[in-house]
Amino acid sequence: LTQVENNPDLAQEVVSNLYKETGYAHIIGVTGPPGSGKSTLVNGLALEFRKRDQVVAIVAVDPSSPFTGGALLGDRVRMRDLAGDPGIFIRSMASRGSLGGLASATGDVVKVLDAAGFQSILVETVGAGQAEVDIATAAHTTLVIEAPGMGDDIQTIKAGILEIADILIVNKMDRPGGDRTVKALQMMLHMGSSVQRVNHHGQQMTLDESPDTVNHGEDAWQIPLLETIAAQNQGIDEVAEKILAHKRYLQSNGGWLDKEIARCRNEIDRMLKEQFIRKMGKAVPIYERESIIEAVAKREIDPYAAVKRLYKEAFAN
Amino acid sequence: LTQVENNPDLAQEVVSNLYKETGYAHIIGVTGPPGSGKSTLVNGLALEFRKRDQVVAIVAVDPSSPFTGGALLGDRVRMRDLAGDPGIFIRSMASRGSLGGLASATGDVVKVLDAAGFQSILVETVGAGQAEVDIATAAHTTLVIEAPGMGDDIQTIKAGILEIADILIVNKMDRPGGDRTVKALQMMLHMGSSVQRVNHHGQQMTLDESPDTVNHGEDAWQIPLLETIAAQNQGIDEVAEKILAHKRYLQSNGGWLDKEIARCRNEIDRMLKEQFIRKMGKAVPIYERESIIEAVAKREIDPYAAVKRLYKEAFAN
Repeated sequence: LTQVENNPDLAQEVVSNLYKETGYAHIIGVTGPPGSGKSTLVNGLALEFRKRDQVVAIVAVDPSSPFTGGALLGDRVRMRDLAGDPGIFIRSMASRGSLGGLASATGDVVKVLDAAGFQSILVETVGAGQAEVDIATAAHTTLVIEAPGMGDDIQTIKAGILEIADILIVNKMDRPGGDRTVKALQMMLHMGSSVQRVNHHGQQMTLDESPDTVNHGEDAWQIPLLETIAAQNQGIDEVAEKILAHKRYLQSNGGWLDKEIARCRNEIDRMLKEQFIRKMGKAVPIYERESIIEAVAKREIDPYAAVKRLYKEAFAN
Repeated sequence: LTQVENNPDLAQEVVSNLYKETGYAHIIGVTGPPGSGKSTLVNGLALEFRKRDQVVAIVAVDPSSPFTGGALLGDRVRMRDLAGDPGIFIRSMASRGSLGGLASATGDVVKVLDAAGFQSILVETVGAGQAEVDIATAAHTTLVIEAPGMGDDIQTIKAGILEIADILIVNKMDRPGGDRTVKALQMMLHMGSSVQRVNHHGQQMTLDESPDTVNHGEDAWQIPLLETIAAQNQGIDEVAEKILAHKRYLQSNGGWLDKEIARCRNEIDRMLKEQFIRKMGKAVPIYERESIIEAVAKREIDPYAAVKRLYKEAFAN
C-alpha cells in the first residue's frame, strides 16, 4: 500500500493486475465537518460490521491539510478503540500535494483493499467542498454526519451536502441543541424528499408527511435521519443496519452498477488530467514554462495567450 | 460579469483585452469555517476601506454547495449592511459544476473588477480544503478567520490552514472560550513563527518570544493574531490597518511580484487542464467514452488501460 500510494507507475501496474479481483467490497463514504465525531462513529461502525463477521478496512483521508498532513488526534482515538483486532485494517492518508493526487492514491488504495477481500471499506474524510463530492462519487453509500451547535446558522448545514447523503446522522445528541439541528435537517430534507427519523435509542419517531414525497414512488431510497452518541456507542447499530439496507437497495434495482459507472467516469477523468499534466511537464522545459508565467505576471502577455502557446508546444511533438 | 461568468469563450476574449489594465487591485482572500462570521467581518472591512477613500469590491465564493448554490443568509446580511453605497460592489458566486470551473470564473471576475478600478477586492470563501489553498494562491493577502467554540478539538484548527494565513483573526470574541481559541492558535503559530497578539480594543499584548523566531530575520512578515467582534464593529480597523501593512510589506521586498507569479502559475495550470478536457470532449464521441467507462465498471478492462486508450484517441487527430 505504501508503494501504491507513493509511486504512480507502480500503482498503475498493481491496479491493472488486480483490477479483475475488485468490485466485491461495499465502499462507504463518511463525511462531515471537523468536530462532528466522524472518527469515533467510524470506529463504532467498524466494530458493528465485525459483529456481523465482516473484515473491515478504514481509510481516513484528510484533504484539508495540504501542507503538514493531519488527523493525528483521530489516529490516536482510532488506535485506542480498535488496535489488536486483526479483522480491522486502518490506513491514514494525508494530502501532501495536489488534491487530485490524493484522490487517485485513495482510489488505488481502496482497490487494493477490495481485491484483498475486505467486505466493507469505510472511507472517512473531513467534509469540505470538492473532497466531499469526490467521496460521494467514489462510494456506494455516503454518510453525512452533523453535530449540534456547530455554529447554529444555516450556513453550517449546506443543502448541497445533504444532496450527497444516502444516510444522514446527527451525532453528539447528548450536546445541547440536538433537537434543533435535527429539526433544521428535517426541514431541508422535506424540501426534496421524505425523511425517516430514528433516535439514538432506536425508536422510530413520527414525522408529518410532506406532500411532495408522493411523487417519489415506492422504489426511491428514503434518506434516513439517524441520531447517535458515538462516544457512548448509542445508535451505531441502527446506522450499520441502514448501511446494509442501502447496499441491498442498490443491489436490487441496478443502482450498484450505476454507482460503479459514476465512480469510473470520475476516476478516468481525473487520471486523464493527471496524464496530460505529466506530458506537459515532459514536453515543455521548466525554465520555459516559468518565463512564460513570469511574462503573464508582468502583464506582458495575457493568460489565455500563454495557455494557447503552452498547449500547442506540448502537442507539437 | 454575468457573461464572463457563464460563457468561457467570451471570458477569454474579455480577459485578453483588458488584461493589461489589471494588476493594480489589492486582492484580499478571506477564509474560515462556516459560522466564523466571515460575511460580517468582510462587510466591516469594506466599510473601513471606504473610510480610507477606496472603491471596494466583494466577491463571495461558495464552493461547498456544488448542487444548489448557497450563501443566501450571507447575502442578506450583506445587503442590510452595505446596500446603497455606490463605492462598494458586491458579487456572489456559487459553484454549479466543477470546482475548477468556479475557480476560473472567479479569477476572471476578479480581473474584470481589477481593470474596472476597484482598489481592494475582498474574495470571501468558506474554508475548505482545496478551495482554501486556491484562494490563498489567488490573493496577495490571505485572512484566516476562526471563532471560539467551533468544536474545541484540535481538528478544528488545522495546521495547514494556518500556513496559508498572512493575518489570523479570532472573531466572535464575545463568545465563551475565546481566550482558549487564541491560546491554541498561538501555540500552533509558535511552532513555526512569531505572533503578535492584538485584542479587539486594539491593545497590543505581550507574548513570550519563542526562540525559533530569531532565525526569521528583520524582513519576515510577522503573522498578526487579531481579536474581533465583527458584529459590534470591534477590532475591524486594526484588521484593515494590518491588511494595508501587509500590502506595503509585499511592495517593499518583491513579494508582490512573487504572489503574482504564484497566482499565474496556478491559473495557467488550471486553464491548461480545462482546455485538455474540452479537446477530449470533441475528439472522442460521448457514446464511445460511456461504453469504455461501462466496461471499466464491469471489470472488463482496467481503468489505466481505459485512460491509455482515450488519451491516444484524443490526440490521434
